Amino acid sequence: MVTTLPTIGFCGLGAMGGGMARNLAKEQFPIQGFDVYEPLMDKLVAAGGTASKSPAEAARGKEFLILMVVNDKQADSVLFDGGAVEAMDKGKTIILCSTVPPAYLSTLREHIDAVGRSDLKLLDCPVSGGSIRAAAGTLSIFSSGPEEDLDNADVVLKAMSDPLYRIKGGISMGQVAKMCHQHQAATNIIMASEAMGLAAAAGLNTQEVYDKVCKSIGRSWMFENRGPHMLANDYLTVHSATTIILKDATIVTNHAKAAFFPLPLANMAEQLYIQGCHAGYAKEDDAGLCRMFMPSPTLVGELTASTAAGKYGITVDDIINLMAGVELASTRECMAFAKFVGLDLELLTDIINKGAGASNTYEKAAGEMVKAGIMGFKPVADASEVRDKLEASIKKTEVFHQYLPMSSAALQELNYYL
Amino acid sequence: MVTTLPTIGFCGLGAMGGGMARNLAKEQFPIQGFDVYEPLMDKLVAAGGTASKSPAEAARGKEFLILMVVNDKQADSVLFDGGAVEAMDKGKTIILCSTVPPAYLSTLREHIDAVGRSDLKLLDCPVSGGSIRAAAGTLSIFSSGPEEDLDNADVVLKAMSDPLYRIKGGISMGQVAKMCHQHQAATNIIMASEAMGLAAAAGLNTQEVYDKVCKSIGRSWMFENRGPHMLANDYLTVHSATTIILKDATIVTNHAKAAFFPLPLANMAEQLYIQGCHAGYAKEDDAGLCRMFMPSPTLVGELTASTAAGKYGITVDDIINLMAGVELASTRECMAFAKFVGLDLELLTDIINKGAGASNTYEKAAGEMVKAGIMGFKPVADASEVRDKLEASIKKTEVFHQYLPMSSAALQELNYYL
Repeated sequence: MVTTLPTIGFCGLGAMGGGMARNLAKEQFPIQGFDVYEPLMDKLVAAGGTASKSPAEAARGKEFLILMVVNDKQADSVLFDGGAVEAMDKGKTIILCSTVPPAYLSTLREHIDAVGRSDLKLLDCPVSGGSIRAAAGTLSIFSSGPEEDLDNADVVLKAMSDPLYRIKGGISMGQVAKMCHQHQAATNIIMASEAMGLAAAAGLNTQEVYDKVCKSIGRSWMFENRGPHMLANDYLTVHSATTIILKDATIVTNHAKAAFFPLPLANMAEQLYIQGCHAGYAKEDDAGLCRMFMPSPTLVGELTASTAAGKYGITVDDIINLMAGVELASTRECMAFAKFVGLDLELLTDIINKGAGASNTYEKAAGEMVKAGIMGFKPVADASEVRDKLEASIKKTEVFHQYLPMSSAALQELNYYL
Repeated sequence: MVTTLPTIGFCGLGAMGGGMARNLAKEQFPIQGFDVYEPLMDKLVAAGGTASKSPAEAARGKEFLILMVVNDKQADSVLFDGGAVEAMDKGKTIILCSTVPPAYLSTLREHIDAVGRSDLKLLDCPVSGGSIRAAAGTLSIFSSGPEEDLDNADVVLKAMSDPLYRIKGGISMGQVAKMCHQHQAATNIIMASEAMGLAAAAGLNTQEVYDKVCKSIGRSWMFENRGPHMLANDYLTVHSATTIILKDATIVTNHAKAAFFPLPLANMAEQLYIQGCHAGYAKEDDAGLCRMFMPSPTLVGELTASTAAGKYGITVDDIINLMAGVELASTRECMAFAKFVGLDLELLTDIINKGAGASNTYEKAAGEMVKAGIMGFKPVADASEVRDKLEASIKKTEVFHQYLPMSSAALQELNYYL
C-alpha cells in the first residue's frame, strides 16, 4: 500500500494522548507510539499503530514527533534523557501538545539548539476538549510557531482537531491562548461548586437550581458540565481530577506573577483548588469541591427533589446573581490579562465562546469590552446592576455564614474597578 | 595590634549589609568588603574596613564570608561567577544573611559540594529589623545549620544581633522561621493600608483613628509603623519599598503552593502588592498602597484634623473590627502553616511577638492556639464575636462600595473554619 500520509512518532498515550494517537492510526497515519506504561501501547497497536521500546525509537525516521505528556519535566525527559531529539532525522518536526508554562517553549527551543539540533522544527500546539474529542479527532488546538512549519504540519494538526486555531506572534503564543482560556475554566469550575454549595446549604431543590441556572445569564459551560456530577453525588468517577485544573491554574497565576500582573480571582480559585487538595479531594473529580461549600458532603444529590423554600429567602435568583457577578469580574480579569500578554482579543473571544471556558456573561461582556477597546467595566452597560445584585445576594447569606470566597472576591474587584 | 577576632569577608554593602559590615568594623573585626557599587565600599573603609576588587578577593583567607545580597541569584553570582567559593580556604564558613526561598539552601549546599568544596561550612542566617538595627548590631537573626558550625560562628552572629535565634531542624529552617514571620508582616502591612483607606474614605479624623487603633486590639506593629507615613502623605521617602514586601510575600506563597498548602490571605496580600506595583507604586514606600483604598491620593493626611462624623455611621470601632478580624484569620493561617512546615511554634510566637510581624491579636490568639495544640479558631474564646463584628463593620461600608479585599477574604476564612 502506498500512503502519502507522513509518519508519526507519538509519546504519551494517556487519556488524551492515547485517543489522539488511536485516531491518527484510524486515519491511516503510519504511527509508532511510546509510553512508560506498556498496556497503553497495546491499545494503539490494536488500533493499527505500532509500539516502541523508547522515545528514541518512536522518534527515529519519522516526519513528526508528537508529545502529549503531563508537563514540561516529562517533555524534557522524553526529548533529551529518552534520546528522541538525538534520534530524529534532519529537519523534522516536534509538535508539543502538552499544556506547559509559555516560557518553557523558548527554554525548549534553546535547549534543542544547544544540543546541535537547530535543524529541527518545533511547534507549540496545546489542546482543549477532553478525552472524547481527543479520540474523535475534534480537539480545539491552539497552534503557534513559524508559519511555514505550521503549513507543513497542517495535515497532522487538521487530523487531530476541529477547530484548529492558528495563534499569531510566534512560538509560545499557543500556550498563551490556552492559558487565557484556562483562566475562565479555572474560575468557572470552582464557582460552579460555590454556587451549588450555596444551593444545597440553603436547602433548595438542586435539580431545579441546575436547570434554571443553565437557562440563565449565570450559566457557564463548566457549571452545565460539572453540575450532573454533583447532582449524582459521584466524585469517584473522575472526569477531570482536581489536580488537573490546579496545574493549569498555577500556569496562569505563575505567568501573571512573574510579569507583576494582578489576577486576584484566578489566585483565589487556585487557593480553593489547593484547599480542596488539602481536604483530601486531589485525585477525585473536581466537581467534588462543592463539598467545601456545604454542611454535608452528599447534600447536593439528596436535595434534587426538595420542596423547601430557601433558608432566609435564598432563591435560585440569588445563585444566578452570584454566578453572573463572579463571571463578570472574571471576564474583565481575563480580557485585561489577555491584552497585557498581547493576544488577539477577538480570536480569544471566539476561542472561549466555543470552548469549555464559555459562559453567558463572558459571551455578552467580553465582546462589549473588545469593541469598546476598554478593559474595565465601563463598556458593560449593566455592570453596576450586576454588582448590586451580587452584593444583595451575598448579604442574604450572611446570617448563616455561608462560605462564599469567589463571590466575595468578585464583589471587591467590582468595587475596585467600578 | 593582636586581635583574637576572626577575619571576615562581606559581600553586599547596601542599606542592610552596609550597616552590618560597618558595625563589625567598629567592633574591631578585621573585615574586607565587596560591592559592585564602589562608593558603598568607601563607607566601609571610613569605618575601619578594607575594600576589594572582587568577591574572590573578599573571600580569600577569611574565616567567615558573609553574604547580604538581594536574592538567591545574586548569591549564586557572588559565590560561583565571582569566584568566592573557589577562593575560600579549606573548612571556612559561608554565612548567608539574605532572605531567599528555603529550598535554595539545599540547592546551594549541593552546588558547593558539586564544585568540590564540601569542606566549606554553610550557615543559613536571615535577619529582620531594618537598616537602623543593622548598623547598631541589634538585628533579629534566625540562624540554622549544623550545631557545631553555629557554635563556631557565635562570636560573629552575636556581634550583629540582638536577639539571636537558633532554629532547630537543620539548614533552611532559619529561612522557614523568617518566612512565617513575613507571613504576618505581609498581611499586616496591606491591612494597615486597607484600614486607613477606609478611615479616609469615610471622612474620619485619621490622626484620631491612628491614635485609637494603636491602643486597641486591632493594633499591629506595621500599622503603628506605617501609619505616620500615611498621615504625612509621604510615600517618596522610602523606608521600605513595595517591591521588598512583595518579594518576601512571594517566598511565602510559592513555598506553600509547592507544598499544596492553602494560604488565601497571604495570596490576597501578594495580589494587592502586585496591584500596587501595577498602579505605579512599586518603588515607593509600601505605606503608599493606602491610595488603592481611597478616592483621593492625599486624603489620609488632609483629614488629620477632620471633625466629620464617619460616612454612614462608620466609626473608629469599625476600623478596629476590620483589623482585629483580619489579624485573627491571618494568625490562624500563619500558625497552621508554621505547624505544617515543622517550626517550633512557641519559638515562632516569641519571634513574632518581638518582631515587626507583631499584632495585639496575634499575641493573644497565637499563644492560645499553641497551648491548646489546635490550629483552628476553637481555642480562641471570642472568635465568633470577632467574626460577627468584622461582618457588621463590612456591611456598613456596602452602601458606598468601599474596596475591602483583605477584610472580605478574612471574613470568608472565618466562615470556613468556624
